[in-house]
Amino acid sequence: MCRLAAYLGEPLFLEELIAKPRHSLMRQSLRAVEGHVQTNGDGFGIGWYGDRAEPGVYREVMPAWSDDNLLALSQTLSSHLFFAHVRAATAGGIARQNCHPFRHGRHLFMHNGQIGGYAQLRRTLEARLPDALYAERRGATDSELLFLLSLARIHAGATAADAVLAVLDDTLALMQQQGITQPLRFAAVLSDGEQLVAFRIASDEQPPTLYLRQTRMGTTVASEPLCDSAAEGDDAADGWSMLPQGAVLTVSAGQCQLRLHAPLRRTAPTPAALAPALATA
Amino acid sequence: MCRLAAYLGEPLFLEELIAKPRHSLMRQSLRAVEGHVQTNGDGFGIGWYGDRAEPGVYREVMPAWSDDNLLALSQTLSSHLFFAHVRAATAGGIARQNCHPFRHGRHLFMHNGQIGGYAQLRRTLEARLPDALYAERRGATDSELLFLLSLARIHAGATAADAVLAVLDDTLALMQQQGITQPLRFAAVLSDGEQLVAFRIASDEQPPTLYLRQTRMGTTVASEPLCDSAAEGDDAADGWSMLPQGAVLTVSAGQCQLRLHAPLRRTAPTPAALAPALATA
Amino acid sequence: MCRLAAYLGEPLFLEELIAKPRHSLMRQSLRAVEGHVQTNGDGFGIGWYGDRAEPGVYREVMPAWSDDNLLALSQTLSSHLFFAHVRAATAGGIARQNCHPFRHGRHLFMHNGQIGGYAQLRRTLEARLPDALYAERRGATDSELLFLLSLARIHAGATAADAVLAVLDDTLALMQQQGITQPLRFAAVLSDGEQLVAFRIASDEQPPTLYLRQTRMGTTVASEPLCDSAAEGDDAADGWSMLPQGAVLTVSAGQCQLRLHAPLRRTAPTPAALAPALATA
Amino acid sequence: MCRLAAYLGEPLFLEELIAKPRHSLMRQSLRAVEGHVQTNGDGFGIGWYGDRAEPGVYREVMPAWSDDNLLALSQTLSSHLFFAHVRAATAGGIARQNCHPFRHGRHLFMHNGQIGGYAQLRRTLEARLPDALYAERRGATDSELLFLLSLARIHAGATAADAVLAVLDDTLALMQQQGITQPLRFAAVLSDGEQLVAFRIASDEQPPTLYLRQTRMGTTVASEPLCDSAAEGDDAADGWSMLPQGAVLTVSAGQCQLRLHAPLRRTAPTPAALAPALATA
Repeated sequence: MCRLAAYLGEPLFLEELIAKPRHSLMRQSLRAVEGHVQTNGDGFGIGWYGDRAEPGVYREVMPAWSDDNLLALSQTLSSHLFFAHVRAATAGGIARQNCHPFRHGRHLFMHNGQIGGYAQLRRTLEARLPDALYAERRGATDSELLFLLSLARIHAGATAADAVLAVLDDTLALMQQQGITQPLRFAAVLSDGEQLVAFRIASDEQPPTLYLRQTRMGTTVASEPLCDSAAEGDDAADGWSMLPQGAVLTVSAGQCQLRLHAPLRRTAPTPAALAPALATA
Repeated sequence: MCRLAAYLGEPLFLEELIAKPRHSLMRQSLRAVEGHVQTNGDGFGIGWYGDRAEPGVYREVMPAWSDDNLLALSQTLSSHLFFAHVRAATAGGIARQNCHPFRHGRHLFMHNGQIGGYAQLRRTLEARLPDALYAERRGATDSELLFLLSLARIHAGATAADAVLAVLDDTLALMQQQGITQPLRFAAVLSDGEQLVAFRIASDEQPPTLYLRQTRMGTTVASEPLCDSAAEGDDAADGWSMLPQGAVLTVSAGQCQLRLHAPLRRTAPTPAALAPALATA
Repeated sequence: MCRLAAYLGEPLFLEELIAKPRHSLMRQSLRAVEGHVQTNGDGFGIGWYGDRAEPGVYREVMPAWSDDNLLALSQTLSSHLFFAHVRAATAGGIARQNCHPFRHGRHLFMHNGQIGGYAQLRRTLEARLPDALYAERRGATDSELLFLLSLARIHAGATAADAVLAVLDDTLALMQQQGITQPLRFAAVLSDGEQLVAFRIASDEQPPTLYLRQTRMGTTVASEPLCDSAAEGDDAADGWSMLPQGAVLTVSAGQCQLRLHAPLRRTAPTPAALAPALATA
Repeated sequence: MCRLAAYLGEPLFLEELIAKPRHSLMRQSLRAVEGHVQTNGDGFGIGWYGDRAEPGVYREVMPAWSDDNLLALSQTLSSHLFFAHVRAATAGGIARQNCHPFRHGRHLFMHNGQIGGYAQLRRTLEARLPDALYAERRGATDSELLFLLSLARIHAGATAADAVLAVLDDTLALMQQQGITQPLRFAAVLSDGEQLVAFRIASDEQPPTLYLRQTRMGTTVASEPLCDSAAEGDDAADGWSMLPQGAVLTVSAGQCQLRLHAPLRRTAPTPAALAPALATA
C-alpha cells in the first residue's frame, strides 16, 4: 500500500499538499492512518505540469519524510496540475524505476493497490504489451505494467478512463482464468496534462481509500484527508469526502465528472465479453 | 531515538540479531515498541571485528528494513563481536557520515539518546577536541562528537568506561552552566575489539532502554528484546533483563562486569570537581 | 576541482546549460577538459530562483551524467537566475550536505577550488563563525565554510563582493601565519536572488578557469565553455572569454560590472592591515 | 563496457584486487585504460563465498572510487573465491538491481560486454525464460537476462560452460534471424562456489579484454592487469596474459583448464543446428 495525492486547479505550490498540511504526504510517509501499513518509506515521487507538454518528475528511493530536496522542490515549484506519491513496496524492490509517478511522454500515472497473484500473472500481462512499450519497461512493479498496458489502449484511441477500466477488466479476467482468489484493488490517478482521472475500484468491494476535496482553488484527490494547513482555519479538516466504490472521476479545468464503474467481474468473462476489451488495444 | 544491538561471544552470523529474530533490528527499524518513535528509518549501520584489528563497517542512509545488502551481509558475515544500529535522526541530517556505528582505528561506537540543547552546546564541545580528532569530524551529530571526546580521553590513557563517564559528566556540567534544563539521556556501546562496554545513564532518571541477555553462546545488549528466532522455541523471549539506571556493563571473553555510575550531577560542579575530569584529557 | 555554471537573464530552461550543449555540465561531469581532474562524479546540485525569495535546490550524491531527476528537472524548470555544479570531492566526503550549491535564506553559493592546508586551518576558521551560523554547519567542506564566513560579513552589512574578498584575504593571512605554502585557488559564484557575483582569484596566479558569455538573452559564467547546443549554429562556440585573474564580476538585470581585485597578499599582513578586514564582520 | 575481476585460491582480503593495487578495480572505476569508456561510475558490486553455500553480495549505485563501505568491506572480508565489478551502464538504468554480480542461490555472475540490438531482442529472450526464473527478473539489463537464461540450462543439467555457450549461440542465432548486424561481445565470469568459469568471446573477433594471472596464491582474471600492490615488488606487473578469443577458462581448486570455443556462428543456424541447443534447456 502507498499514499498518494493529486491536484488540478489554480497554480499552487506543491508544499500545500506535500509539506504544509498537518497530515501532509510527507507526514503520511511516516505515519499513515488509513492504509494497511503505517509506514510508506520505500521511496517517493512527484510529477508536475508546467510550461511544456511533458511533465517534470522527481523520484527518489529515500523516505519522503527526511528528503531535503523534496522539501525544497515543493516550496519553490508551483503547478496547476501535479502528483505526489509515497511508497510502501509490495513488489519490485527498492529502485527509482519502481517509484511513482511513472511518466511516459505527456502522461503521468500513480497507483495504490495490488494485483492478487501478480508474480503468477506478470509474464502473461507483459506479453500483452506492444513492442514499443515493452521496450519501455524499466522496473518490476505491477503499477508500471498497468500504466504501460493502459497507454497501449490510449495510443490506440481509447480515452484514459476507458483504457484503464479495460485493463482492469482484462487483468481480472486473467486472474480468474488462473484461479487466483486474491483480490484486485486499485486506487490510481492518470493524467495527460489536461485531464486528471482518478479511480477507486476493487474486485472485492474493498478498494483502497480515495478522498475528494473541491475548493475555489481547485480539486484535490488523496488517499487520506490532508487535514489542511493551520492557515486554513479550524474547519480545515472539512470538505473531504470518500469517493464511492467503482468511482471514475474525471477532472478538467472547470469540470468534475463522476462515473461509477460496474463492479469488476467476479466470474470469468465469456470470450464474447472479453473480445471488445481486447479489440480496443 | 534509535535502536541498537551488540554481541560478544562465540562467532555468530549477524543475521541472528539483525534479520532472523521476530523482533530483529531490521524489524525494529520499521516498528520499534519501546522508543519514543516507532520508525527508525533514517539510515543504519553495522560494524564487526574479524581477522584484523580494525573492524569492518557498513553504513547506509536507506531504511534497514528494505536493504538487500544488509540482509546479504548479515547472512554471510559471522563475528565474535559486532554492532548494529538503526537510526531515527534527531540532529545532523541524513548522511552516511551521521550513521552509527562510528569507527576510529580499532574502536567502534554507537549511541541512542540525546544531549539536551545540543545546538547550543556544540561549539563549546567541539572546541574541546584535540586537533587530531577535530580534523576527524565528518558529520554533524552529537553522537560522533561524544565518541571523539571519549577517544581523546582514551588516547590520554583512560579506560573506555572512565572516558565516556567523564565526557558525560563534563557535558552535563556544561549544560548546567548554560542553564539548559532538557535532560541528557544516553544508551551506548563502545568497543576496542576486545571489550564491549555498554552504558545506560541519564540526568533525569529516564535513560533509554537497554536490555541484557546472556546465553552459553555469548552476551547481547539491545534497546529492545529481540524476541528470538522461532527456532529457539517458546521461551525464547525469556532471558532478557533491563540494565539498571546508571549501568556501565563491561563484557569481555568469559567475563561480564556491571558497575553503577552515580547519578549524573544535577548541580553545577565546583571548579575543583570539574578539574580532575578535564585533567584526564 | 569541480565544474560550475550560472546564468542571469531572460528566463531559460535549465537544460540549456545543464543538458543540451555539446559540452554541457552533465557532459563535464563525465569528461571535463580544463580541470585538474576529468571526472566530476562525486555528486552535483542545482539551485534556481523563482516566484519566492528563497531559491529551490536539488542536490544529490550520484554522478550528474546519469541522474534522471536532474534531466527531468532541467527540462521543466525555467529561471532567470540559476546555478549548477558538478563535484570532484577534495574534502569532506560524499554527502548531500557537501554538495553545491549551498543555500542559506535567499543566498546561493558554489565553489571550485581549494584552500591549501584546509585540514590544518579548519578549526580556526570555524571558530570565527558567529554562533548562529556555526549551528548551520551541516557538512565538512571548505566551500560551505567559506560561504558561512562570507554570510557573516554580509549579515553585518558588507556587499557580497566585499564579504567574499575579505574572507579570502583573511584566510590567506591565516595560511601565512601557519606557514602553509600551498595556494588558495578560488572560482565561485554567489547570489542573493538579484545579483550574481562571480570570482576568479588565486594566491599563486593559477586560479581555476572561469569563462564569461554574454548574449541578448543574458549572462553565463562557467568553468568551461559549454560549446552550445546545435540549435545555436556553427559559431556557437564563440562568445566565451576567460575572466582575468582577480576578476570580481557583478551581474544584475541589465548590468555587468567587472572589477579586478589586487592579488591576494603573499606576505603576512600586519595587524593593522588585518584589522579592517576583521572589523567588517 | 564495465571492468571486472575475480579470484579463486588461498583466502585473500578483497582489497588485494579492489583497493590496494596501483590499478585496482576502484582505480579502474575512475580511469580504465583498455575499455571503450574510461569511467565506470554507474554502480559496482562485490560477491564472495564464505562459510555458507550462498555467497554474500554488496551492490551499490554510487561510483566505487568514493565508496567508504566498499573500502571497509574489502579490508575486512577475506575469501577464497570472490567477484568484483564496476559498471558503465549501457542498458537498464542506474539501480542496484542492474549492478553486478548477480546472485541466484549459490551462483554468481558478472559480465562486461553487449548484445547488439538488445532492445529489439529483449522480448524474445525474456520469453525463453522458464516461469520460475521469469519471476526472478529484477532489473532491465541484458546481463541479468543472460545469467537467468544460463541458469535455466544449468538447472536442466548443463555444465556452467556449456550453458553459457549455448545461450550465446542461441542469442546470436536470434540476432541473425532479426537481421541485427551489431556484434555480440562477451567477457564474463560465472561461479557456483566451487568452480569459476571465465569467458572471452565475440561474434566479431573483438571480445572485451580479459586477462589471467596465476600465482602460488591462486588464479585471478581481470579486465585489465591490476599492476599489483607495491608490496609484491618490481616485477609485479608481470604475470598477466590476455586470454585468447573464444576462451572458456574453468578454474577450480588446484586446476585451471582452458578450452577454446569455436567462433560464434556468423550465419543463421539451420533449424537442425539450433535444435540441440534448445533441447538442453
